[in-house]
Amino acid sequence: MPNSPLKVVVTRDLGPDVMPLLGDQNDIDLIVWPHDRAVDKQWLLEKLPGTTGLLVMLTDKVTPEILDAAGPTLRVVSTMSVEHLDIRAIAKRRIKLGYTPDVLTDAVADLSVMLALMAGRNARQTMSVVDKGEWPNYTWSPFLFCGPQLSASTTSTQRTVGFLGFGRIARATLSRLIPFGITDCIYTSNPDSPYNPDRDAELKKEFPASLRTLKKVSLSQLASDSDMLFVLTPGGAETRHVVNEEFLKGMKKTSVLVNTSRGTVVDSFALAKALREGWLWGAGVDVVEGEPRITQDHSLVQEPKCVILPHIGSATLETRLGMATLAAKNLLAGIRDEAMPAGLDLSQYCE
Amino acid sequence: MPNSPLKVVVTRDLGPDVMPLLGDQNDIDLIVWPHDRAVDKQWLLEKLPGTTGLLVMLTDKVTPEILDAAGPTLRVVSTMSVEHLDIRAIAKRRIKLGYTPDVLTDAVADLSVMLALMAGRNARQTMSVVDKGEWPNYTWSPFLFCGPQLSASTTSTQRTVGFLGFGRIARATLSRLIPFGITDCIYTSNPDSPYNPDRDAELKKEFPASLRTLKKVSLSQLASDSDMLFVLTPGGAETRHVVNEEFLKGMKKTSVLVNTSRGTVVDSFALAKALREGWLWGAGVDVVEGEPRITQDHSLVQEPKCVILPHIGSATLETRLGMATLAAKNLLAGIRDEAMPAGLDLSQYCE
Repeated sequence: MPNSPLKVVVTRDLGPDVMPLLGDQNDIDLIVWPHDRAVDKQWLLEKLPGTTGLLVMLTDKVTPEILDAAGPTLRVVSTMSVEHLDIRAIAKRRIKLGYTPDVLTDAVADLSVMLALMAGRNARQTMSVVDKGEWPNYTWSPFLFCGPQLSASTTSTQRTVGFLGFGRIARATLSRLIPFGITDCIYTSNPDSPYNPDRDAELKKEFPASLRTLKKVSLSQLASDSDMLFVLTPGGAETRHVVNEEFLKGMKKTSVLVNTSRGTVVDSFALAKALREGWLWGAGVDVVEGEPRITQDHSLVQEPKCVILPHIGSATLETRLGMATLAAKNLLAGIRDEAMPAGLDLSQYCE
Repeated sequence: MPNSPLKVVVTRDLGPDVMPLLGDQNDIDLIVWPHDRAVDKQWLLEKLPGTTGLLVMLTDKVTPEILDAAGPTLRVVSTMSVEHLDIRAIAKRRIKLGYTPDVLTDAVADLSVMLALMAGRNARQTMSVVDKGEWPNYTWSPFLFCGPQLSASTTSTQRTVGFLGFGRIARATLSRLIPFGITDCIYTSNPDSPYNPDRDAELKKEFPASLRTLKKVSLSQLASDSDMLFVLTPGGAETRHVVNEEFLKGMKKTSVLVNTSRGTVVDSFALAKALREGWLWGAGVDVVEGEPRITQDHSLVQEPKCVILPHIGSATLETRLGMATLAAKNLLAGIRDEAMPAGLDLSQYCE
């Protein structure tokens, strides 16, 4: 244990379950941004000199300026997200980076299933009927409010689920869908990886036998064959607007689209047009390109067949607590030169 | 085949997939109410004399007056619901009754899962943020919009689901919840049926081994132990307001309540109070006592933690088509004195 405590800066109070993990350590001099809003850059720049560990939120850009303000004492940056970080600048300075993968898999898979159900069952329109006090105006009618059923049924025994991106969250979503009677799963993933039927056969073993097929397909087949389609691929330039007019025109009229990954993957304007013109049945999105600057005149907000949530994919009490706890543990391990529970391998950025 | 066709009256056009089942029969004289609203009683009374088969909707009361208007030729009433029928009057006249059980199990189970997810994830509040154009006002914060997670997770490995009523729809709902990591299932059912651990052990075999327990419990234990609680019990005087203040006070603060059966089972005023005061986390209801006369000033509509849908439990294209098809087949079998695919046994009403 060093003689003088190690300085640690945390950019948000992480609540009574997590803060004691840091505050109760004898070897730490803990400094916490005291307000319930994103940290002021000026405050951060003033506190950083001599810092050994920095724990940041999604709201905080970690730039070379920030890293240089901390100076050569900085050993670790611990974060609950990664997209707001200049990873190259961190790697170049040989600073370790802790992050929180996996922890949010269940929360996002839950939300993906919820949005698929809501899109099929016209949830935004039907909730609005009640909210506006219009329920008394509707009498029962054989096909009133009807949408496509997510579950297979005796009259409709097959269901194909499609995944754009087939990582952990996609597989957790598929697991949840199996007892709804999903019979077939198709996916696309990194176009550079060659078609590998052996890998698909291996993957299929993770699921109950009621899933008849699991296979990688082309993007156009993904669009045309999916009854429900989940966008679960990383963001960035490579995947920008993969879901565009051409893709949406290829979908089934009774299908639903769910995006719980990154807003940039879907062309919002094309999706709004597709819903308006009935190329697909409905959509449920937790992310929108340009968020959070999404106002009432946004084309998707205008579209009653689009359920929109304000990016709450990982927003469960259990998951955020798990993320904050892991971030605190990464920080502690990092400043003490121990192995972090979840450190990002930065070797590819170190040339 | 009889010499003169049998007169059949249908109170609503059931669409191009179902009507040919009836219209294409040589032995039938088909009369269909031509409007897209509930049938006028006067029209019905005029058409009924000499009718052999009557196919009715939820909206149509079948009273002794209606039955007498049809007269002694009436052999069968076929319906897509049963609560609007005077069953005793039908039984007394030795008329057969066809109905459509089971067909809607999957649709209602889907909706039950959807509402449980929505209640936990604060769907009404978070959707409203986007609908009102308020998303730009929110910046990320560690616990913003967080609710209890339906799925079990590494930090929270147990989940107990409770069912008030444990029939087909409840079991179909439980099946869907298993891969979310549900570990324990408790239920209450008809209080007259004695506790039977052997039956519970038999029932448990229908589900994967990851479900550790399945057992009948008292009403108070159902309230206190459930992380999510599904009301799936018949309506009527016996179950009226079983979910009342006392029951709701016993629930976990992080639990959610879902009602997809009958509005009368839940005391709406007590539920609104419970949500306002935080006795439980949230609720999702597809049915409300007094529906459809539910206006904006209703106590549950006023409560942001209550998701309300306008009774769309069976409203999927597949299910309503299945219900209409079965109703048509019951009618055909009934008028021809063949066995109906789904006839209600009226012997208990025939003394």
